[in-house]
Amino acid sequence: MSAVTALRWHSGALDLLDQRRLPAEQTWLRCASAGAVADAIRDMVVRGAPAIGIAAAYGVALAARDAYAAAGDGWRGAIAADMAYLRAARPTAVNLAWALDRMARQFADIAGDPERALLAEARAIHDEDVAANHAMAAHGAALIDPGSRVLTHCNTGALATGGHGTALGVIRTAHAQGRIAEVFVDETRPWLQGARLTAWELQQEGIPARLVVDGAAAWLFARLRPAWLIVGADRIAANGDTANKIGTYTAALAARAHGAKVMVVAPLSTFDPVTPDGAAIEVEERPAQELTQLAGQPVAPAGFAAWNPVFDVTPAGLIDVIVCEHGVIERPDAARMAAFLRTAGR
Amino acid sequence: MSAVTALRWHSGALDLLDQRRLPAEQTWLRCASAGAVADAIRDMVVRGAPAIGIAAAYGVALAARDAYAAAGDGWRGAIAADMAYLRAARPTAVNLAWALDRMARQFADIAGDPERALLAEARAIHDEDVAANHAMAAHGAALIDPGSRVLTHCNTGALATGGHGTALGVIRTAHAQGRIAEVFVDETRPWLQGARLTAWELQQEGIPARLVVDGAAAWLFARLRPAWLIVGADRIAANGDTANKIGTYTAALAARAHGAKVMVVAPLSTFDPVTPDGAAIEVEERPAQELTQLAGQPVAPAGFAAWNPVFDVTPAGLIDVIVCEHGVIERPDAARMAAFLRTAGR
Repeated sequence: MSAVTALRWHSGALDLLDQRRLPAEQTWLRCASAGAVADAIRDMVVRGAPAIGIAAAYGVALAARDAYAAAGDGWRGAIAADMAYLRAARPTAVNLAWALDRMARQFADIAGDPERALLAEARAIHDEDVAANHAMAAHGAALIDPGSRVLTHCNTGALATGGHGTALGVIRTAHAQGRIAEVFVDETRPWLQGARLTAWELQQEGIPARLVVDGAAAWLFARLRPAWLIVGADRIAANGDTANKIGTYTAALAARAHGAKVMVVAPLSTFDPVTPDGAAIEVEERPAQELTQLAGQPVAPAGFAAWNPVFDVTPAGLIDVIVCEHGVIERPDAARMAAFLRTAGR
Repeated sequence: MSAVTALRWHSGALDLLDQRRLPAEQTWLRCASAGAVADAIRDMVVRGAPAIGIAAAYGVALAARDAYAAAGDGWRGAIAADMAYLRAARPTAVNLAWALDRMARQFADIAGDPERALLAEARAIHDEDVAANHAMAAHGAALIDPGSRVLTHCNTGALATGGHGTALGVIRTAHAQGRIAEVFVDETRPWLQGARLTAWELQQEGIPARLVVDGAAAWLFARLRPAWLIVGADRIAANGDTANKIGTYTAALAARAHGAKVMVVAPLSTFDPVTPDGAAIEVEERPAQELTQLAGQPVAPAGFAAWNPVFDVTPAGLIDVIVCEHGVIERPDAARMAAFLRTAGR
């Protein structure tokens, strides 16, 4: 079990590690109501799609407790406002809606006080995410030769999930198996999730690691020869094209240019068979201020424009393996992806 | 003539635009002695190899004035301490030593007060640099189709040179000729020269531009299709391999992957025929703190390690043209580089 965790249920409330304050401070924010959980999700106290979904599930248990106290057996009506407030916290996070829907499916079967049953379901969602991460980690780690250097991008660790992580979960498990000599961490502009979060997770566990600027990728693969680029995914199209944090595609080109391999690690829920390929994926663009200001200080002229896409799409042709909890897809393309999903029962 | 300038001789002293304060403030630092010029070079008030050389040349004129006031015709002995102090300001900047040596070669021929002759030589160094930049700009701009988008990296503009710039000089001239629809500016981590300096220069001149994170390069070429990556150089080996600010090689891979072209723009003094290829170029590495802190704030865990090379080396095979004041070398390799240098009289 990872020493790092983003969230924990403790004495009747949800404690969230405030990721906005990392790495300078480790502050836990105690959420004793669904409203407090929703606010924490909206304000980025917790981030990472799986972690957001789990936090929201615990939030439903808190909402039900309050609704039962206020309305008794009328709690199913009284909970509606909290459910809507949770759902609106980060409207684009797929895992958030998925977790709320799964929790709501329990409502009909509950008799009396709903807290215990819903807390059990939230814990099940949490535990299943951790188990899926460990399954992915075992599949991915087995591909890495002992003593390898690897590069990772953004944060895909315990902080972004129920625990252990996706791409960083592979790295954790591979390190425990003696397969990792050193991890290189892209700082991941503009939000610096690599510098702030991934570096912190690796330091907590004593895994040897060095930070690099995102632009150093080609020179890193040329000079220090990491064997793998290991990244997460936000959406994987039917042909294997993969949307992930901006900078992933650039790093994948650098890996390929020097014979290093590219591993994408994501749960099956990230696979999107309805989207045929990367061209069909819409990529969110965010405000210029994320580039023109840093830690509240201006670093570019006031009013200067920016092109600030949150994600890029790495073509499947640059991806050597996609790893999920059900196994590994080598050299992904539309046919291999479809065959894998049939086997996995999707 | 560019509206932006890094340095100007005015009423008997050298005024330097304090580049550490850009873009928030435009503050001029008045240097009335060689010691003040050397301190300004050391403290990064002025940066960019050509600009450093020019500032040092004016510093020699100031040193001579003080030495003549103190020692009369014995000024050639009295100036030695100031010359040594200037030389030590940035020991690795080739242009600094080159400018001091060129100034010193004038000493023997001077009768009486040396200030006027040495000021004339400093102005000649300054003027020749500007002229070389305009020659490069004309050669490079002619290669760019009207209405093109281009990407540039780091700062290679008026702030880094005597005026106009190398890669940014090409962009300035090409814009004036209607060839540039839009400039994309890499923010250029870790020092953010693109965000702080190049963006400021472009804004001053009203050239349409947008900032991008360095890691966005591949997605930028895929989606917005800049036709050229245009960069400067710190050293060009005999076979055309080019050392430049970290991130250049990564951006060049992204350009090539999408059929965009790569232009390197640098004066002939940057060519190093003694170094056979990129493998022979030693690349300076700087402290981890440049990545783990930002604007004085920690952005990574205290004590976290980093790999922080200042430069990378782009293989000649990724470079479509090298542009200098004497013309253009297409598809550079050892044979074409040697043939060009013979024609240029080197």
